[in-house]
Amino acid sequence: MQGVYPRRYAVLTEGLLLGMYGKTAHGVLRFRAADVAVIIDSTLAGRRVNEVLPSIASDAPIVPDLEAALAYRPTSLLVGVATDGGRIPSALRGPIVAAARAGLEIVSGLHELIADDPEIVSAARRSGSRLWDVRVPPVDIPLFSGAAYDAAADVVLAVGSDCAVGKMTAMLEVERAARADGVRAEFLATGQTGIMIAGGGIAVDRVISDFVTGAAEQLVVQARPDSEVLLVEGQGAIFHPAYAPVTFGLLYGSAPDALVLCHRPPMQHIAGFSTSIPPLSELVREHEAILARVKPARVIAIVLDTSAFEDSAAAALLAAAERETGLPVADPVRDGGTALWRAIARALGTTEKAARRADRARTPA
Amino acid sequence: MQGVYPRRYAVLTEGLLLGMYGKTAHGVLRFRAADVAVIIDSTLAGRRVNEVLPSIASDAPIVPDLEAALAYRPTSLLVGVATDGGRIPSALRGPIVAAARAGLEIVSGLHELIADDPEIVSAARRSGSRLWDVRVPPVDIPLFSGAAYDAAADVVLAVGSDCAVGKMTAMLEVERAARADGVRAEFLATGQTGIMIAGGGIAVDRVISDFVTGAAEQLVVQARPDSEVLLVEGQGAIFHPAYAPVTFGLLYGSAPDALVLCHRPPMQHIAGFSTSIPPLSELVREHEAILARVKPARVIAIVLDTSAFEDSAAAALLAAAERETGLPVADPVRDGGTALWRAIARALGTTEKAARRADRARTPA
Repeated sequence: MQGVYPRRYAVLTEGLLLGMYGKTAHGVLRFRAADVAVIIDSTLAGRRVNEVLPSIASDAPIVPDLEAALAYRPTSLLVGVATDGGRIPSALRGPIVAAARAGLEIVSGLHELIADDPEIVSAARRSGSRLWDVRVPPVDIPLFSGAAYDAAADVVLAVGSDCAVGKMTAMLEVERAARADGVRAEFLATGQTGIMIAGGGIAVDRVISDFVTGAAEQLVVQARPDSEVLLVEGQGAIFHPAYAPVTFGLLYGSAPDALVLCHRPPMQHIAGFSTSIPPLSELVREHEAILARVKPARVIAIVLDTSAFEDSAAAALLAAAERETGLPVADPVRDGGTALWRAIARALGTTEKAARRADRARTPA
Repeated sequence: MQGVYPRRYAVLTEGLLLGMYGKTAHGVLRFRAADVAVIIDSTLAGRRVNEVLPSIASDAPIVPDLEAALAYRPTSLLVGVATDGGRIPSALRGPIVAAARAGLEIVSGLHELIADDPEIVSAARRSGSRLWDVRVPPVDIPLFSGAAYDAAADVVLAVGSDCAVGKMTAMLEVERAARADGVRAEFLATGQTGIMIAGGGIAVDRVISDFVTGAAEQLVVQARPDSEVLLVEGQGAIFHPAYAPVTFGLLYGSAPDALVLCHRPPMQHIAGFSTSIPPLSELVREHEAILARVKPARVIAIVLDTSAFEDSAAAALLAAAERETGLPVADPVRDGGTALWRAIARALGTTEKAARRADRARTPA
C-alpha cells in the first residue's frame, strides 16, 4: 500500500476534464471526492466540478494553474487523464514539473512513466517530493502458491463481458454500500484508476505473465486482516482475444468465492474485434464451468451499465436479465450500490466458505 | 530471430549432464545434435554423449574444461542446465567468464541473466563476444491485433493437461517428420529450451501479461513466409491455477487452426496443486468450447508421454485414449513423429482454413 498520509489532491486535467480522456479524474472525483482539493484546468477555470459534470457530487473549485492550486494546500498532484498510448500530454508536462519543484507528490497512471522523465525526476529530487507511477507493479511478486484459497474473508471478483463495462465502479459502489451497512468491506484495485482511488493495489496488466496469478493472490493475502469482504476489481473478459490472460490471472489468482458479472447493453461484440459476446446466461455458465475445474465459485449477481438508456428501457433491461439468469440484477450507477450489496451479502451466506465458517463456530474450541 | 550464423555449440553442464537439471542439454542434443560440437563436464570427461545417455543419438565428446572444448572450435557456449530458481550454478560461472573472454557467444536460458553479471559483461565487451539471454523477450512487442487470424500457413498449437507433459518435444518431432515428408514445417518456440533449439522465439512467460497474446501473434506473423505449417510450442494448461494466463496467451494469440493435446499418464493432478486433471475427452471438449467463442479450432490428435510404462502397458494406454476420444493418439518419443505428423496432416485438410484455400484455388484470378 502506498498510502503513507491522508492525501489532498490537486487533479491536473488541463483541457481534458470533460471528455473520455478525463475518466481518471472522473473516477477519483466520484469515489474520493473528499480527497480532491482542487482541479487544474485553465479551460474551465472559475467554475466548480458539479457545474461542468452534473453527475459528479463534488464542488471542488477549478483553477487555471498550479500556482492557484497551491492555495488549496494539496499534498499531491494527480495526473487526471488517460490518453491513447499513455503518453504524458505536452500541455501537462510543465505543471507536473512545477508541482514536483514545489514539493508535491506526483501520482500518475500513464504508461509513459514520470520516473523515466529526467526533468521531473531532478525537480522531485531537489524538493524531496515523491513520484508514484501507479502502473508499475512491485518487483517482488511471488508465484501463485494457493495461499489465497485460505483467505478468511469472502472474496468477490467482478468479471465482465468486455473491458470497460463497469467492473471497477460496481465494486466501489458495493464497498460504499457495505460500509454503510457496517460491514468491513475492502476494494482491491487491479488497474490504474482503481489504484488511485484505493491508494494502493497492483496494475495486473503490467505484471509479467508468469506472475499475474501471484499478483492477484498477493492482493488477497495482503488485504487488511480484519476485512470481512474483499471486492476485487476485474479486468478484461475470459473471451477477450487480447486481454484474457489478465482476466484469468485474476480469476484463478484471487480465488474468488463468488463472481459478479458486469455487462453494458447493447454491446454485442468485444470492442475492436468481431468476437461475439455470449448471452448473459451463457457467460454465467461458462465462468462457473471453468472455475469448477480450479476453485469452484458461482456468479451471484449481474450488473448492467444502462447509462445508454432512458429509465423505462433500463428497467426493462434489468428485468429481462433477471428472467434470463435467475439472478439479482442491478445498475449501481443509476440506483446506488445498496440493493447490489445486499444481494451479494445474501448469496455470500450460502457459499462453501460460509458453511465452513458456520461449522467452525459450532465446534467448541 | 537470433540466428546470425550457423552455431557450433560447446554445451556446459559441469556435473549436471545426467540428472533433471540437464534437461536443457538433453533437448538441444535430441533435436540439434549436429550443432553440438562438444560437452563440458569434468565428471564425465573422456566419454561420449550416447555412452552416458543411451536414448540420445549424439556421439559428441565430453571434455573436462573450456580449454579442451576450444579444440572443437565452437562458436558459442550454451549453458545447458535448468536449475531451481534459475540461478547460475557457482561451478558454471568460471567457465562462462572464460568462454566470454575467449570470444565465444554465450547462450543462457536461466532466470539469472548473464547480461546482469558485471564480470561476464566486461569479459564479453573486451573480446567482442555476444551475450544472449534467451528468456528476455523483445522490448517492442505490440498488443494483439488479430493479424494472426490471416496467417496463410496452418497453425497447430500444442496444449496440455499440465506443464512438462511433452508439448515441446511433440511439436519438434512433428517438425522433423513433416520436413522428412517434404513439407515446410516451422517450430515456433515459446520457452527457453525451445528457443535454444530453434535459434529464436519468445519466452512468453516473461512477457508482460497485457502483451502475451501479442507475443504469440508476433511469432505467427513473423514466421518464415514460405512455411506451410507452423507448430507452436505450448505452455502450461488452461486449468493450471498458476500458469493458465500464459496458456491463454498462446491459445488466443497464436490463433491456431488445430490443437494437439498432450498428457503424461498416470498424472491425475496438476503438479504442486490439488487441482484434478479432467479425463482426456473432457479436456478436448473444454478447449474446443472455449475456442469456439474466440476463434474456433478442434483438437486433432492426442499425444501421450508413456515413458513411465513398459511397451505393452504403453500400447494399452494409447488404445484406451483412442477409444475415449475418437482421435489419433501417438507417443512420438517412443515411436517417432511420423504417425503423429501424418494424422495432423490429414486433419489439417479438413479445417476452415483449408476449405478457404481450396475455394481460392477454384476461383479464377
